[in-house]
Amino acid sequence: MDQRLHFPALGALYPPDPALPAGERACFAAALTEAERGRFATAPNPCVGAVLATRDGILARGYHAAPGQPHAEVMCLRDARDKGVDPASATLFVTLEPCNHTGRTPPCTRAILDAGVRSVVVGHPDPNPLVAGGGLAFLRENGVNARYSQDPDVRQACADSLADFLVWVGGDLPYVILKLATTLDGRIATRTGHSQWITGPDARREVHQLRRGVGAVLVGGNTFREDDPQLTHRLAEGGAPLDETADDAHPLKQPLAVVATSRLPEPGAVCRLLSERPHQTVFIAPPAAAESDQAKALVQCGARIIAAKDMAEGLKALRRELGVHHVLCEGGGGLGLSLLEAGLVHELRLHMAPKLLGDAEARPLFAGRAPERMDEALGMRLTEARTAGQDLLLTFRPQDS
Amino acid sequence: MDQRLHFPALGALYPPDPALPAGERACFAAALTEAERGRFATAPNPCVGAVLATRDGILARGYHAAPGQPHAEVMCLRDARDKGVDPASATLFVTLEPCNHTGRTPPCTRAILDAGVRSVVVGHPDPNPLVAGGGLAFLRENGVNARYSQDPDVRQACADSLADFLVWVGGDLPYVILKLATTLDGRIATRTGHSQWITGPDARREVHQLRRGVGAVLVGGNTFREDDPQLTHRLAEGGAPLDETADDAHPLKQPLAVVATSRLPEPGAVCRLLSERPHQTVFIAPPAAAESDQAKALVQCGARIIAAKDMAEGLKALRRELGVHHVLCEGGGGLGLSLLEAGLVHELRLHMAPKLLGDAEARPLFAGRAPERMDEALGMRLTEARTAGQDLLLTFRPQDS
Repeated sequence: MDQRLHFPALGALYPPDPALPAGERACFAAALTEAERGRFATAPNPCVGAVLATRDGILARGYHAAPGQPHAEVMCLRDARDKGVDPASATLFVTLEPCNHTGRTPPCTRAILDAGVRSVVVGHPDPNPLVAGGGLAFLRENGVNARYSQDPDVRQACADSLADFLVWVGGDLPYVILKLATTLDGRIATRTGHSQWITGPDARREVHQLRRGVGAVLVGGNTFREDDPQLTHRLAEGGAPLDETADDAHPLKQPLAVVATSRLPEPGAVCRLLSERPHQTVFIAPPAAAESDQAKALVQCGARIIAAKDMAEGLKALRRELGVHHVLCEGGGGLGLSLLEAGLVHELRLHMAPKLLGDAEARPLFAGRAPERMDEALGMRLTEARTAGQDLLLTFRPQDS
Repeated sequence: MDQRLHFPALGALYPPDPALPAGERACFAAALTEAERGRFATAPNPCVGAVLATRDGILARGYHAAPGQPHAEVMCLRDARDKGVDPASATLFVTLEPCNHTGRTPPCTRAILDAGVRSVVVGHPDPNPLVAGGGLAFLRENGVNARYSQDPDVRQACADSLADFLVWVGGDLPYVILKLATTLDGRIATRTGHSQWITGPDARREVHQLRRGVGAVLVGGNTFREDDPQLTHRLAEGGAPLDETADDAHPLKQPLAVVATSRLPEPGAVCRLLSERPHQTVFIAPPAAAESDQAKALVQCGARIIAAKDMAEGLKALRRELGVHHVLCEGGGGLGLSLLEAGLVHELRLHMAPKLLGDAEARPLFAGRAPERMDEALGMRLTEARTAGQDLLLTFRPQDS
């Protein structure tokens, strides 16, 4: 149903150009596709991919699947061994600098040496400034031709692939994905509020996959009050679709439901989150509201209250107190825009349906700013474009990331 | 600057997958890319592309460049001869059924036979029901293994490539492209009307290429009065960019400037179209306005008046009286939406800048409808997605096309 992954930073050379069977960009494109296989499963580790390639093409592949599991380089070397490929005759392309220390697994630099690899190209340095370059230096000292890619598009594409990890090691925020479904003309509902459905079943299935991947799904108070959402995914264990209109939440592991609001529900208020899964529900509220009687009643129901003077503080508490590494914000537009303006959106996913409402009164994607000049717009950077069924799935990152 | 052409109808197999060197889809993708080289230059003939391919890959290519020039099949066979490729050992893939009659050029079916081609796959039948199938039948009668592609995605992609030709032979309208530049949140200007620039220089250069290709650029009365546009392209002969802010229109061939309005300018009104190129300016106006004193004064200036009770009539007159085959409508949103609702937009091009205004008061892409339910939206079909610089260029066609 989906078209293949597409990394604009790699431009016209991804998907790999058949005329360039083992060009550096094509090899990194393949390594990035490997890295993607571990998406959402590796936290707090990065998603990393590796391939072994010669001029004849890509001979072996590997990725990091989960914490405690072997790193991508080791998986790729295992794949080579299984396929009878001699690593000494190929170049290892890896999206992140191989580790040079013993953690839960032995250092990858040692595995690379032991396998006889003679040539290594790395897409992104280790983000820890104390050890960056150490992996490459160790390999070079031991006779391996090891270097960083000098292609800025490769480095950008690898940085984008590692973006969540770079957020985690660079501070104490979780990685925030803002996902909104919109028409081509930037509307999220008709003038009456009708919005089911903007996008088709393939795009909606992607949303359930996102919900299954993240630790928490976040909505604003208006969305909570108007939609009474469940914020659960409807996918069975293997990823088969469940019925998204079914009334009861699926018993499988679900993301936390997080509501950011200054107006906590009154005691006795009926809503699906509190009646169906109060122990998985979290309210982020200003300190005064967090000490109110409403807050106490919610805690009695089993919900959790996070007192935060702003969203940065609330998001940090989600990570620190509840171990949430990825937050999926599903709106509304007011919360989304405030997160964007505060620099708290690391990834914007627009699910764009090929339809037009053509109504200035239909609900806008975002509202609340009042720029007079076009250069006051919030700038983003397109990093992925795909289709799902009839819809267009666009991923953007902040312009300066 | 641009990324390669992308035909969603061909899905994951375009660009050609290196693992399928001469798969039928990959061959048609290459033939479609050839066809694109004649875009805007072939009217009233179609843009057609052809390739000769074996399992080893694509060996020769050709396209129809202009009326009176050889057809794509003949150009492809010439390319094969120049390269020493034996057509008998390859399959000819052509986006439109080869002609079987002598027009300005001898029939392509004869050229195919004479060249010794033994296998032909056609993407789209001749749209003339009286001759459709005749080219294939003639080839089969003469021992060639000739067939239509049975791949619905190939047929759709070829129909999209031939869309302008199918409009011309199917009626008396010109082919209408509606092009609008928008932010990600569906805004064409700030609340103050500021819009320069939404998109970057690469996307704006594409607009000038479109203007150079079409016979007429159309705007509504509000855009005419507010922007005082020139509607000229700023490209030099070879396509090198000129200065788009230069004050004087380029002396090269320019598209007609067409203004659709019920409020013709008053005699003596000063505007760039009338002062700089009145003889290339056309007003489409309701019959009463077209007989007014303002109309007579405009004719005195050298402009032309088309009396039309609706836009369909006005567009047909552009083709019938002025030989216009492609019309580029650049807005505003009011005219664009009325054309869309009347089924008069054959192709919608959205140039989408990766930026957000976040203002409900900023000027919307379209306004004027008032649907209450999401399923009352105007449905489109995505047929191409590319980037130009930082911007996203999206092409849509009506859902039922």
